[in-house]
Amino acid sequence: MELADAVLGGDRLALARLLSRIENGDPEGQRDLAGLYARGGRAHRVGVTGPPGTGKSSLVNELAKILRATGETVAIVAVDPSSPFSGGAILGDRIRMRDLAGDPGVFIRSMASRGALGGLSRATGDVVEALDVAGYQWILIETVGAGQAEVDIARTAHTTVVVEAPGLGDDVQAIKAGILEIADVLVLNKADLAGAEASLRALRTSLEFGYSAPKGSAGAADVWVPPLLATVATRGEGIADLADAIRRHRLYLGSSGEGRKRDRRRGEAELEAALSEHLISELRSRLPDGRLESALDDVLARRLTPRQAAEHLLQTEPA
Amino acid sequence: MELADAVLGGDRLALARLLSRIENGDPEGQRDLAGLYARGGRAHRVGVTGPPGTGKSSLVNELAKILRATGETVAIVAVDPSSPFSGGAILGDRIRMRDLAGDPGVFIRSMASRGALGGLSRATGDVVEALDVAGYQWILIETVGAGQAEVDIARTAHTTVVVEAPGLGDDVQAIKAGILEIADVLVLNKADLAGAEASLRALRTSLEFGYSAPKGSAGAADVWVPPLLATVATRGEGIADLADAIRRHRLYLGSSGEGRKRDRRRGEAELEAALSEHLISELRSRLPDGRLESALDDVLARRLTPRQAAEHLLQTEPA
Repeated sequence: MELADAVLGGDRLALARLLSRIENGDPEGQRDLAGLYARGGRAHRVGVTGPPGTGKSSLVNELAKILRATGETVAIVAVDPSSPFSGGAILGDRIRMRDLAGDPGVFIRSMASRGALGGLSRATGDVVEALDVAGYQWILIETVGAGQAEVDIARTAHTTVVVEAPGLGDDVQAIKAGILEIADVLVLNKADLAGAEASLRALRTSLEFGYSAPKGSAGAADVWVPPLLATVATRGEGIADLADAIRRHRLYLGSSGEGRKRDRRRGEAELEAALSEHLISELRSRLPDGRLESALDDVLARRLTPRQAAEHLLQTEPA
Repeated sequence: MELADAVLGGDRLALARLLSRIENGDPEGQRDLAGLYARGGRAHRVGVTGPPGTGKSSLVNELAKILRATGETVAIVAVDPSSPFSGGAILGDRIRMRDLAGDPGVFIRSMASRGALGGLSRATGDVVEALDVAGYQWILIETVGAGQAEVDIARTAHTTVVVEAPGLGDDVQAIKAGILEIADVLVLNKADLAGAEASLRALRTSLEFGYSAPKGSAGAADVWVPPLLATVATRGEGIADLADAIRRHRLYLGSSGEGRKRDRRRGEAELEAALSEHLISELRSRLPDGRLESALDDVLARRLTPRQAAEHLLQTEPA
């Protein structure tokens, strides 16, 4: 437990090593994390997602600076599911390094798929967990894109910020209410560009379409209406308002009970994933040699559907 | 089995009904599909993916028209994981309807998440399966974005076409070799726009970076070098070349054995997903009342990690 102790003691190098173990799927990383698990759960986790080209990296940098101004510590996790690079090689990182390097209250980590498709959401969850036990008060999780992985990763956050920019395929964007559904805070960044007004209108319409307040409860403390903010991250404009909105959402999560509900949903998903992993690996070790292969052959020859093959496999087991 | 017979007989209304059953998670849909499973596996499945705003819908329309010219039948599945709409309400559909409506050799289906996060990849797989058994010779699967869901969906395809457009965040795009990794054919659409030459160069560099031919095997029949094509879908330019490239890739899959390898990988993933689903639902029905809830409480109170809680749950089971 030397590494774990060093992480708790604020050793950045030890933390970086723990994160590498987790990313590499090293079982020791899991053991370290399990030993530290009881210490976590105190950070506020903010997911920042949206299409490429909306300036999310700059926005996250500025947000980190504003949060740091009150002395709170900030960790940034940049996740790019479509990049095979990791560990500082993503373009946005270099910008980040220039702005935030040398601040001991900031820790930055980049993650990428490196072909580890499917496992990225879980690895990200574990990395965020490690940053939480290491004591960072704010964890900003930046994801590129608007696909399933981003939505899954955003779900590990307490507050999800969705970032859009003017002119980025407004025709399609306006009807993409789905991504707005996960927004606790909606931001139009690059609001100094032409077309910002039209984009704000389109986003407002989408928000109104996607969100209808429970009748008679408008303004009540237990209802959250996602605010729409305009920012120009490269000039720091609107970032203080964004930080305020995130803090307000954090208070709302605590006072309304919604935070507890979300934690429960997240816990259920994590538990189910762990169960599934165990059950499958148990089954693999239990089945006679070649049984799984022959089931696969049945599927490939279309003698059985995958579901039928699974049923057969489980029936032939010694109960 | 009336519905299944009607589907095999080419009844479009019956097919639409089967697809709705599948999308709604209706167990009857699964039964129908299982009964038809042996009839499938003949269609060539083409995934078309890439960022929003690259003109994928137009490209897919034009591709469908070219494929139809030889008398072959075409089904189009448009998947938008971030849209809550479905069944014809997506914008691209209206354009599609105008171009292809009334052609009995074309069938179009739109799918969206409608909050069914996580299940979309599987539902899409089943829909594609149904179109395959219904006898469509080409199935074009169009997905928006470049996240995990898109990659997963592309993996159900035999040939994956990745579409880019000039100027769409070239700074980020150039390093996004990850999405290129899944490309069997790479297309720069909207190649008449300013910056097309620079984008082509950036894509060529990314391709060369991501792909290195096995030494001494250049030009051999068992090596596929993803071609880079320039198209202007709205004017039909370059689409015949695209259709040719896809047909060549289809031949390559057959002659090199790569097609069989991919089928096997896909089969494995499908079988594992089915096993996992069964095992979890078995476990749920076997565990004493409240046992799962108390494990979840342990996780939420951080007394146990999800993995530890899963191990405990499986240990307390009557073996």
